[in-house]
Amino acid sequence: MPYLTPAIRLRRTPFSRRVEEAGATAYTVYNHMLLASFFRSVEEDYAHLKKAVQVWDVSCERQVEIIGPDALRLLQLTTPRDLSGMADDQCYYIPMVDEEGHMLNDPIAIKLANDRYWVSIADTDMLYYFKGLANGFGLNAKAFEPDVSPLAIQGPKADTLIARVFGEKIANTKFFRYKTIEFQGKKMIIARSGWSHQGGFELYLAGSEYGEPIWDMLFDAGKDLDVRAGGPNLIERIEAGLLSYGNDITIDTTPFEAGLSKYCNLDKATDCLGHSALLAHQDPNRQIRSISIAGAPVPAITSYWTLKDQDGNRAGHISSATWSPDFETNVAIGMVDRAHWTPGTDLIVETENGEQSATVRDRFWI
Amino acid sequence: MPYLTPAIRLRRTPFSRRVEEAGATAYTVYNHMLLASFFRSVEEDYAHLKKAVQVWDVSCERQVEIIGPDALRLLQLTTPRDLSGMADDQCYYIPMVDEEGHMLNDPIAIKLANDRYWVSIADTDMLYYFKGLANGFGLNAKAFEPDVSPLAIQGPKADTLIARVFGEKIANTKFFRYKTIEFQGKKMIIARSGWSHQGGFELYLAGSEYGEPIWDMLFDAGKDLDVRAGGPNLIERIEAGLLSYGNDITIDTTPFEAGLSKYCNLDKATDCLGHSALLAHQDPNRQIRSISIAGAPVPAITSYWTLKDQDGNRAGHISSATWSPDFETNVAIGMVDRAHWTPGTDLIVETENGEQSATVRDRFWI
Repeated sequence: MPYLTPAIRLRRTPFSRRVEEAGATAYTVYNHMLLASFFRSVEEDYAHLKKAVQVWDVSCERQVEIIGPDALRLLQLTTPRDLSGMADDQCYYIPMVDEEGHMLNDPIAIKLANDRYWVSIADTDMLYYFKGLANGFGLNAKAFEPDVSPLAIQGPKADTLIARVFGEKIANTKFFRYKTIEFQGKKMIIARSGWSHQGGFELYLAGSEYGEPIWDMLFDAGKDLDVRAGGPNLIERIEAGLLSYGNDITIDTTPFEAGLSKYCNLDKATDCLGHSALLAHQDPNRQIRSISIAGAPVPAITSYWTLKDQDGNRAGHISSATWSPDFETNVAIGMVDRAHWTPGTDLIVETENGEQSATVRDRFWI
Repeated sequence: MPYLTPAIRLRRTPFSRRVEEAGATAYTVYNHMLLASFFRSVEEDYAHLKKAVQVWDVSCERQVEIIGPDALRLLQLTTPRDLSGMADDQCYYIPMVDEEGHMLNDPIAIKLANDRYWVSIADTDMLYYFKGLANGFGLNAKAFEPDVSPLAIQGPKADTLIARVFGEKIANTKFFRYKTIEFQGKKMIIARSGWSHQGGFELYLAGSEYGEPIWDMLFDAGKDLDVRAGGPNLIERIEAGLLSYGNDITIDTTPFEAGLSKYCNLDKATDCLGHSALLAHQDPNRQIRSISIAGAPVPAITSYWTLKDQDGNRAGHISSATWSPDFETNVAIGMVDRAHWTPGTDLIVETENGEQSATVRDRFWI
């Protein structure tokens, strides 16, 4: 594994010192910010995530705040998901598309008020798109990056830990809803959400200066729960079919290809700039599928692996893959052509280690 | 130094295999793409860059192509530099600003035709800003990322190498002008430019499949010139005062604070969206300065170091710094408040290793 050269441009977070003290081994860069990939090993972190509770510094899920009378209008321009029915305490996963219906990002939108939203972004500068649109359409809405850094609490014991530090009422928050907590006199929101299938919360740290005290409070309260530092886990997120923008989805992908049709309310979201284009994309010729790869553990994937049928014809590509200790197979996410996407179809995948057998599945693992 | 976890999202380049074979030790991530930081060591690469010739995989300087009847209009919306007089073979360094006159990027714009430009971007998704503006203003111009990957040839022997492979006429290209070469029947442009002070060229590889053949040709032709793989060098670029977006300049910086007033033609570039705001920013209260730091070599800088005056009052911050073997001092770039920015002013800088003496200089080192 190569080294990562430090620079201010790869921004530290309010939790970076604690992450270092916890022994982060490797990082990725996400939204111009450091994100720890693993601490002990990907496999050990994975096993622990599934049985205990972890605290993840996901500050790199930067927020774009959109505020002003036209805030909702600006947001709706970018997504085919109808936002009109969003409750006051609700979070929405929203595909974001350009005028051609191609994906620009797949963030969580959070409604803070009728004229104020946060967009918790995947790894592209959506701030720039919002600024361009707001300028061009002359909207009365402003987009900026606030001093807000999400901290995820994930794992089967996350509810126990949150109940201890913030009370049962907060621990009872419903999925993709948020409540408000107060820490040292500062109000912050906490949602039941997070990029794992193990359940948990995301606390939107409001004010970098509260980062270390909140981190320490969680670790003090969770000692007997074996709370550890962690991060989005490659194995667990593939098992759960959590898509990653930049890996599984890119600007070449439509929401329909990504299997996100349930978030495309084309009857209602007619203001979305990609609306006309999306109408024409509804019946895609390729789509994301869950794929198992037989044989030895696959190497780290750093560019698409070609999928072929038994006659050697191109059938698609693999975009994420790794060995799953729990399922004792390689778990993968791929983009598969219509002719080959039926569950049970046997294909061949070309990795750097040679060819391996692959099978299209009907669903992800967990 | 921590490890960098591989992922498709951190895109490989057309030259990545050659870069690995050349022994890249550490990388950074820039525009969602890998950029090798050094090979042997930063110091050894630096000494070699100043006396020989290096080939740099700077594919991460991604291009945004802007094409269409409104291409120039779209581009001019983003920059206070007057683009109307750009020659057909010219490259312009252009500060790009938002409606508040704050910097979004500092790319090189290249005029390919009256209705076609490339913007060779620093590390933010300018594509998204252009797309937002084009949509909002209803412009007849399209922005996209073409399959173009710059390869820099830098160092005092760069002219010799380029003359050998492309001929004297190409080697005689003037500063920030480009000429067209043909490689295996494919036309590409090559400009006299690059992110070092040692002189050289940037070849805009058009078509990833030509990457390794062009790399190999340059290395075959340059053997006796001691050609080596390299990359933008931290020491050399600070000595030369080459500013880095994300380090020295951010969205909180105006072009005037960055010392870029000569690229702000406010009498002519009235269509720039930040025009009114920039008129009010012309007399900044802080500005980028060359700074020397006395004493022991400073540690790697990963967040701003505070500058103080002799009474302990805040005087600004350091954004880039490293030890210079040639000048036998720490060379640095800082943002200094007006009260302290006069050359010769002695200040104190707080690094992770404690306080060191710093002095404001009148110019950079080379």
